[in-house]
Amino acid sequence: MEAYVLSADGIKGQPGERHEIIIADGLIRWRGDSKPYVCTVDKPKKETKMKGLKSFIAYSITSSLSGIQVSRRYKHFDWLHEILTAKYITIALPPLPEKQVSGRYEDDLIDHRKHILQLWVEKICRHPVLSKSDVWLHFLTCTDEKQWKNGKRKAEKDEYIGGSFLNCVTSPDAPLNPNDVERQVEMFNRNIRQMEEGSRVLTERMNTYQRLLGGPVKQNWQKLAAAFSALGHSFKDDGAGPASMRMADALQTTAHHYHVIGDDFETHAKNDVERVLERVYSYRGTISRVPDICNIHKQAITKWRNTENAVVEGKISESQAVKVKQRVDNTSYVIMAEVNHLNAEKTEDFKQFIGAYLRQQQAFYQQMANTLGDLAKQFE
Amino acid sequence: MEAYVLSADGIKGQPGERHEIIIADGLIRWRGDSKPYVCTVDKPKKETKMKGLKSFIAYSITSSLSGIQVSRRYKHFDWLHEILTAKYITIALPPLPEKQVSGRYEDDLIDHRKHILQLWVEKICRHPVLSKSDVWLHFLTCTDEKQWKNGKRKAEKDEYIGGSFLNCVTSPDAPLNPNDVERQVEMFNRNIRQMEEGSRVLTERMNTYQRLLGGPVKQNWQKLAAAFSALGHSFKDDGAGPASMRMADALQTTAHHYHVIGDDFETHAKNDVERVLERVYSYRGTISRVPDICNIHKQAITKWRNTENAVVEGKISESQAVKVKQRVDNTSYVIMAEVNHLNAEKTEDFKQFIGAYLRQQQAFYQQMANTLGDLAKQFE
Repeated sequence: MEAYVLSADGIKGQPGERHEIIIADGLIRWRGDSKPYVCTVDKPKKETKMKGLKSFIAYSITSSLSGIQVSRRYKHFDWLHEILTAKYITIALPPLPEKQVSGRYEDDLIDHRKHILQLWVEKICRHPVLSKSDVWLHFLTCTDEKQWKNGKRKAEKDEYIGGSFLNCVTSPDAPLNPNDVERQVEMFNRNIRQMEEGSRVLTERMNTYQRLLGGPVKQNWQKLAAAFSALGHSFKDDGAGPASMRMADALQTTAHHYHVIGDDFETHAKNDVERVLERVYSYRGTISRVPDICNIHKQAITKWRNTENAVVEGKISESQAVKVKQRVDNTSYVIMAEVNHLNAEKTEDFKQFIGAYLRQQQAFYQQMANTLGDLAKQFE
Repeated sequence: MEAYVLSADGIKGQPGERHEIIIADGLIRWRGDSKPYVCTVDKPKKETKMKGLKSFIAYSITSSLSGIQVSRRYKHFDWLHEILTAKYITIALPPLPEKQVSGRYEDDLIDHRKHILQLWVEKICRHPVLSKSDVWLHFLTCTDEKQWKNGKRKAEKDEYIGGSFLNCVTSPDAPLNPNDVERQVEMFNRNIRQMEEGSRVLTERMNTYQRLLGGPVKQNWQKLAAAFSALGHSFKDDGAGPASMRMADALQTTAHHYHVIGDDFETHAKNDVERVLERVYSYRGTISRVPDICNIHKQAITKWRNTENAVVEGKISESQAVKVKQRVDNTSYVIMAEVNHLNAEKTEDFKQFIGAYLRQQQAFYQQMANTLGDLAKQFE
């Protein structure tokens, strides 16, 4: 970063990627791609190599961009994540699923990881810079082993990483007021801390709620089911004729559906509540990078202040200072573009995950109401 | 009982009440009243006497039989219950609410007692003997203080109580096979033990379920409400324009309704689950008398066996034995009429209380589904 601001990074080569920042609707923004696309992570498959000595899970990834389907392992995602993190230090990358060794072939866990990977690719597809990243596109489309290795090597030797990536960005000529930008970035950082705390609490409570539904709530419905069933048996045994037999049947049917409702609560917790938890995990992981990004901006601003002082003290020339200011401004543009991207994403994320969750809850309780209504009819 | 069977009760007076047993649809039954009626216990009111030194709750009772409204205290119910228990030893009386001193003026408790008293009067109204009982009708219609006292005294001096009540019953001439009846009564007694165990388990689990809904389930919804509300605040503070403001509003509305749903769970537990518990309490109290009733029958059968032996041994005459057999048969008729009444009541009771509960559950979850559906729309 410092090297970039002071034009001391010594990079000579042409950057492979070019990104542009514009001002749209009064907001500093990355110029979005005209062709948005989506990606699907699917079909986790256990594969082996070295005659079965090593086994791993391979995921198939398909993008609407190329239609090409590639097969990638967790370690490939992990490698790509490292590369992207190093290259785009001013961009908040989504998190990968946690590395986990024990139980890594359990269906639930594989499913959970697949969902987190899906959210990871979704966020990359939606990011105006990452979605056009060479290394990402390579990951997404390369099916040839040799080309894959070449692309990998190329990415690992990329000079335009860290602060130097800013060389790949063109921003508007309009100079910025560093103090203003600083205030905005600080406000954003504070707000993100608030969001982080809110998301942490939400995660904690959703976890508790998930355990409650899959545990005591499920158990209670099923214990009531058993109680109804026992009473049904007593009616069957009372020898008091058809009215008792009908009651016995009604109680058995009620017991059966109460048991199913118990299972449904667990499924609801495992699927619907889990989806919220995964999305909050992805969101929290993304914003966990924000303090570092804000810090980068702080460093650039400090560099600018030092430069201003150095000019006053006659240590460096006005023309040198202008160059520094341009590069600080470019940094500010990049940070502000990311701030505005994250704000927009946040709203979309919440819209999607809370909206989806409420609809799933609605469907769940609607089905329960229907079942209970049908059961009630038996007792009329 | 023994005195009755051996015609040694020495009662000379005319019984005030007459009840008749018939055989209908192959079952031994009390001749039912042609005019069924209902009773309502309502408006529990705190009243005082001795210038406020003593306070008590008075309930108003209205029957569709007379339309007369009377005011009775718990102690009046208690007195009547004692009288009925002593008089109708072969009839399973419903239970009164438990006596409770602490917190006896709390609204919830008063409401709970009112419901149990309501079930008590309902069961009496539906019983073909109790519904025509003189002392009950006196309780139900007497509004004059002096007449009340006279009626009370009369009931307390009633000779036709216990075994002697059987003198008030006319049963079919057809002789019964005591061994057959004994088997039927024993089967009934066993079945009632099964029902008692089933109801005990149901009570226990409904209690646990009630605590779960009013406790952890309520708390979880409300804690999630608080989490949504905190996230809503973060959106409000992010300065990212109208999309964030709309999200803030949607989250606040969701938080509000989640909080209300939490309260609704408690209300559902307090009202709907409580109604089931009350009905099971009433049912269990009623059948708790069954072993004693079956025992009375056993005594009568034993008396008959002893009589048979005494005839063989020439200790008593055939004609005396015939009289004993008639009275044993009358006892069997009375017991079987009660057995068949209880079997029919059981089916009706369960039909009503489980059916009603399922409908209330349906309504509860239907409303939840509707609320959640409305909330989801905000995130579209």
